[in-house]
Amino acid sequence: MRVGVLTGGGDCPGLNAVIRGIVRKGVQEYDYSFIGFKDGWRGPLEGDAVPLDIPAVRGILPRGGTVLGSSRTNPLKEQNGIRRIKENLAKSEVDALIVIGGEDTLGVAARLADEYGVRVIGVPKTIDNDLSATDYTFGFDTAVGIATEAIDRLHTTAESHMRVLVVEVMGRHAGWIALHSGLAGGANAILIPEQRFDVDQVCSWVSSRFRASYAPIVVIAEGAMPRDGEMVLKDGSLDSYGHVRLSGVGEWLAKQIEDRTGKEARTTVLGHVQRGGTPSAFDRWLATRFGLHAIEAVRDGDFGKMVALRGTDIVRVPIADATARLKTVDPELYEEVGVFFG
Amino acid sequence: MRVGVLTGGGDCPGLNAVIRGIVRKGVQEYDYSFIGFKDGWRGPLEGDAVPLDIPAVRGILPRGGTVLGSSRTNPLKEQNGIRRIKENLAKSEVDALIVIGGEDTLGVAARLADEYGVRVIGVPKTIDNDLSATDYTFGFDTAVGIATEAIDRLHTTAESHMRVLVVEVMGRHAGWIALHSGLAGGANAILIPEQRFDVDQVCSWVSSRFRASYAPIVVIAEGAMPRDGEMVLKDGSLDSYGHVRLSGVGEWLAKQIEDRTGKEARTTVLGHVQRGGTPSAFDRWLATRFGLHAIEAVRDGDFGKMVALRGTDIVRVPIADATARLKTVDPELYEEVGVFFG
Amino acid sequence: MRVGVLTGGGDCPGLNAVIRGIVRKGVQEYDYSFIGFKDGWRGPLEGDAVPLDIPAVRGILPRGGTVLGSSRTNPLKEQNGIRRIKENLAKSEVDALIVIGGEDTLGVAARLADEYGVRVIGVPKTIDNDLSATDYTFGFDTAVGIATEAIDRLHTTAESHMRVLVVEVMGRHAGWIALHSGLAGGANAILIPEQRFDVDQVCSWVSSRFRASYAPIVVIAEGAMPRDGEMVLKDGSLDSYGHVRLSGVGEWLAKQIEDRTGKEARTTVLGHVQRGGTPSAFDRWLATRFGLHAIEAVRDGDFGKMVALRGTDIVRVPIADATARLKTVDPELYEEVGVFFG
Amino acid sequence: MRVGVLTGGGDCPGLNAVIRGIVRKGVQEYDYSFIGFKDGWRGPLEGDAVPLDIPAVRGILPRGGTVLGSSRTNPLKEQNGIRRIKENLAKSEVDALIVIGGEDTLGVAARLADEYGVRVIGVPKTIDNDLSATDYTFGFDTAVGIATEAIDRLHTTAESHMRVLVVEVMGRHAGWIALHSGLAGGANAILIPEQRFDVDQVCSWVSSRFRASYAPIVVIAEGAMPRDGEMVLKDGSLDSYGHVRLSGVGEWLAKQIEDRTGKEARTTVLGHVQRGGTPSAFDRWLATRFGLHAIEAVRDGDFGKMVALRGTDIVRVPIADATARLKTVDPELYEEVGVFFG
Repeated sequence: MRVGVLTGGGDCPGLNAVIRGIVRKGVQEYDYSFIGFKDGWRGPLEGDAVPLDIPAVRGILPRGGTVLGSSRTNPLKEQNGIRRIKENLAKSEVDALIVIGGEDTLGVAARLADEYGVRVIGVPKTIDNDLSATDYTFGFDTAVGIATEAIDRLHTTAESHMRVLVVEVMGRHAGWIALHSGLAGGANAILIPEQRFDVDQVCSWVSSRFRASYAPIVVIAEGAMPRDGEMVLKDGSLDSYGHVRLSGVGEWLAKQIEDRTGKEARTTVLGHVQRGGTPSAFDRWLATRFGLHAIEAVRDGDFGKMVALRGTDIVRVPIADATARLKTVDPELYEEVGVFFG
Repeated sequence: MRVGVLTGGGDCPGLNAVIRGIVRKGVQEYDYSFIGFKDGWRGPLEGDAVPLDIPAVRGILPRGGTVLGSSRTNPLKEQNGIRRIKENLAKSEVDALIVIGGEDTLGVAARLADEYGVRVIGVPKTIDNDLSATDYTFGFDTAVGIATEAIDRLHTTAESHMRVLVVEVMGRHAGWIALHSGLAGGANAILIPEQRFDVDQVCSWVSSRFRASYAPIVVIAEGAMPRDGEMVLKDGSLDSYGHVRLSGVGEWLAKQIEDRTGKEARTTVLGHVQRGGTPSAFDRWLATRFGLHAIEAVRDGDFGKMVALRGTDIVRVPIADATARLKTVDPELYEEVGVFFG
Repeated sequence: MRVGVLTGGGDCPGLNAVIRGIVRKGVQEYDYSFIGFKDGWRGPLEGDAVPLDIPAVRGILPRGGTVLGSSRTNPLKEQNGIRRIKENLAKSEVDALIVIGGEDTLGVAARLADEYGVRVIGVPKTIDNDLSATDYTFGFDTAVGIATEAIDRLHTTAESHMRVLVVEVMGRHAGWIALHSGLAGGANAILIPEQRFDVDQVCSWVSSRFRASYAPIVVIAEGAMPRDGEMVLKDGSLDSYGHVRLSGVGEWLAKQIEDRTGKEARTTVLGHVQRGGTPSAFDRWLATRFGLHAIEAVRDGDFGKMVALRGTDIVRVPIADATARLKTVDPELYEEVGVFFG
Repeated sequence: MRVGVLTGGGDCPGLNAVIRGIVRKGVQEYDYSFIGFKDGWRGPLEGDAVPLDIPAVRGILPRGGTVLGSSRTNPLKEQNGIRRIKENLAKSEVDALIVIGGEDTLGVAARLADEYGVRVIGVPKTIDNDLSATDYTFGFDTAVGIATEAIDRLHTTAESHMRVLVVEVMGRHAGWIALHSGLAGGANAILIPEQRFDVDQVCSWVSSRFRASYAPIVVIAEGAMPRDGEMVLKDGSLDSYGHVRLSGVGEWLAKQIEDRTGKEARTTVLGHVQRGGTPSAFDRWLATRFGLHAIEAVRDGDFGKMVALRGTDIVRVPIADATARLKTVDPELYEEVGVFFG
């Protein structure tokens, strides 16, 4: 058995742990051989691959990023993309393909499996934790940890100057990182894409915090938006979900807070540091187990499936389930956390 | 409604987050008042308590330890212990008691509830993650993170001198910390209390790692033991489970490895650093939610129950369920991880 | 002896360590009493002060920020500012004043000492490390550590996507943070305010790094500027040094790199996280020793002086020396580091 | 010019940064070629070497340990050791040798230079910071940082259980790590090899801390010793300095404190984690500059010298100066820090 592996979409701490898990178990227990396609779907599209054996995966467990490279190349948008992939897989004598990626990458995998009979196993990857059918995705815990540490640091700056600090974290369509890091960091308001926010409400939380003689921290997901009509868009382009894509909502909000409360406000945009660097222990554990179970699914011939976390178990679900619906923050959970606002 | 809170047993990052969650929600949403009993069961036994209000829980979220103090005082071993507790609860006009603790502490809570009708809600706490009925306990993720970071550091020392490094981590009866940190840290052998280890097998993993020109790391739980007859006990006292309590199994193993393989071996005992300091973001999230749900159980009058994590949900289970059975590492899971040994 | 203490200017990890050092030694060894003026010069200007004793400084060593608060209030710009301060110092029966601050704050202290005979001791504080007469200032090491950790993380993201990552760090007039964190983080170009940069040169370093099959990291101080004529200013206001104050030079540079090299480039602005949170061990050591020596200078009656680090010794220099000249990066040192560019 | 490089003695974060600095500058600016001898003096003794070029040093800056390996092999104790080294250097056509090491390793280098005319440049390395002639050695700041973080964590455990925590850190002959981490971690007693301690004095500090309702932390260097006659040695062997080598002084002290104060005491021995893992930003900066200046000394033909830090400058001193005298903690400095005891 010869197995291809690729990693697609934005990078995410834990990708290397998945690759290592796949190769270690595949070689040692089942005597499989492996090749790694480079830069997501670009690899099989252009026939660009490297051999993957045990020496190739030594020492990669604690390293962020992906040794296979990644890209957002979408074969569905390339001429004869799917056919060229099929041909290159055949040329490489690949019997099965393990695809590690998010919604877009797995969407292509699902089509390859359903329409073209390619033998595919999926491994879910999104730093935003917004894939259905799995309790958590790897990379998310690392991102939340980095954001929480930043919020911890910002508290002391806020207190010393009695300023508002607005922290913009990742999360275009789902507020998981904002919710977890905001709660863990003791934020006084958490704003998420799932629920449009009311600037006056935010200002009232801010003022209430000042009245207790503390300085407020507001955590806002990059995709959070104020109620209709409140915000003059800096950038009105539509994204792939058909949503209006904003940039700089954190800075916009800080300005609003200054204007309405008369207090100084500063913004910090955490950006790419949230997705780089060594994975947390939790993410190394989860990613490694995803890798081990992915290769077991190959061995069982259980194709068209994706591995997923349910409680403490790794299970298999149809790839299509993962991509069918964005996993967003439940209003009830958001309300639960709201007790800490203000 | 007046609610008492206590924290018992060994300290654990996240205890303060639970207390804060309880008080914030209890005061703001239900207008309850709170008192905190000091040092675990010693507090209600001796009537030692402090008021708990919102100012008292400000700023404690990121702090390790417990602002209420803790102890291993067991009222079942005190003369009229249970009766004195009942009296002191009555004197303090406490309508309900939230008990945050591990097997021993919750065992007392269960008896208070079952036999004396005290209105008790439990919150599970064990850094070892060995309580049944909950997927994870808070503090465990922090401990695993600290141990993993130490293992990361020890790799470079091992490589530079081509030495074996034996890392002894917490876990007297269950190998969860060893298993998670050992996997996350890329250990070449992980030894847990659930399965007696064979020193020759460990030496064979060690040698295999050296043959690949790398230096081995062996992670061992403090409660792990070699096969019968192999170890001369340094300390043969029986612990509360009737197990022989060893000390220094890591050092013993390092000596054995040196003798049998001729390679230098060194031991690091991580000890108390694993349970101190600021909780990880994961533990702050989990602990806070346990606190919020504990006070909701009080509001619902659902006494005799303990909050627990199932997947991403917080549920309620009978306190007795938690203490009925130690949650140990499943042999299948241990085998899954074994692919990385050697 | 009754001593006043104040902290002025931007906050900086280590301020609390200085305060603790002053109070511990002053009370225990010399039996002095202390009051803390609130929010920099605002405190003595408005007579706003709190008592400072040993219980007040317990537990503050590892905490970022300043328990006394800070502000940029400049008494020289207030009506009768200096006179009001003199009066309030007299009213508070303060015999000596320890002023912890940067160029502006110490400038006021120097005038108070020189022109009004106020008995002042200075403690230098600037996260940018740009004060003359001291080898290092506390807070700088913490900022460099945070920036380095961020750069470490960004490397893996850059590699996975073969992108340029531009990291904007603090440093309006001096490039110390950029230089140290850029070197420690293995940056492929470091741009500092002391030397105008040539975008084509930067692009050539970037391209050279890509040719070695690695992705480049460019570290740029917020005050760095391209050669004349190259940059269209987004914000042309003059700052207190009479320099043009730019905002967003990192983002501007990323755009230029994309345009000229055809490679994707992303920017991360680290911002306030660099100055918040717990101080590094180095900064706690330095800040504490500054505190201990400041109170010794008070005891010696050696007023008008500032404590300073020279090698491993703490010495005293005239306050005016510190503020006379901005300590900028020596061209020779910049050239030494340049061997790593490209 | 062909330059050999070796790293000897215990490993230390920053060794790889030195190697990288040497090679980057030597190749790029002076067009030198390099070989790396393996495992300290074992390499030139046995003629074991690897080529060192720019690709070989890529990515090693943030990695702990040493890519060249290390050992405590002492050629002075090998038959014809020095002669064999001379022959192997000649065979490898090495024109100059850069030796990175501590007292023992540099001692050999000094003899090679003085007695055999080998063209040697030294780079000082000791995690204990106990080499004369340099303000700091790299690795020390990392070790202090790790120890400080551990002490921070242990505070919360001590407080929760009102226990004494004894932390044993590295430092056999000099107390620098204990002094810096103890001060930075807010320890209530710091015990160093330079000054024999009085157990009753320690107990009095411990009791005084408890009276203030806090739990004490005692930091002790592994080489600290009680006053004569107080300690029954567990291990009486003499070390290379002719000192009695103790093991377990931390545990011994904890027992004494328990016996004399009646309070619970626990010991944590930090051990090898202090010397492994990624170097701090400070150490990366210092080590890199040492490397750059070492190759410059080679270019200048200034052999027999060692690079050293003085303030913020890198200077050159005779190698013999470094090894002439152990740099121990000055009694005055120890007394300065003593204000925080108790």
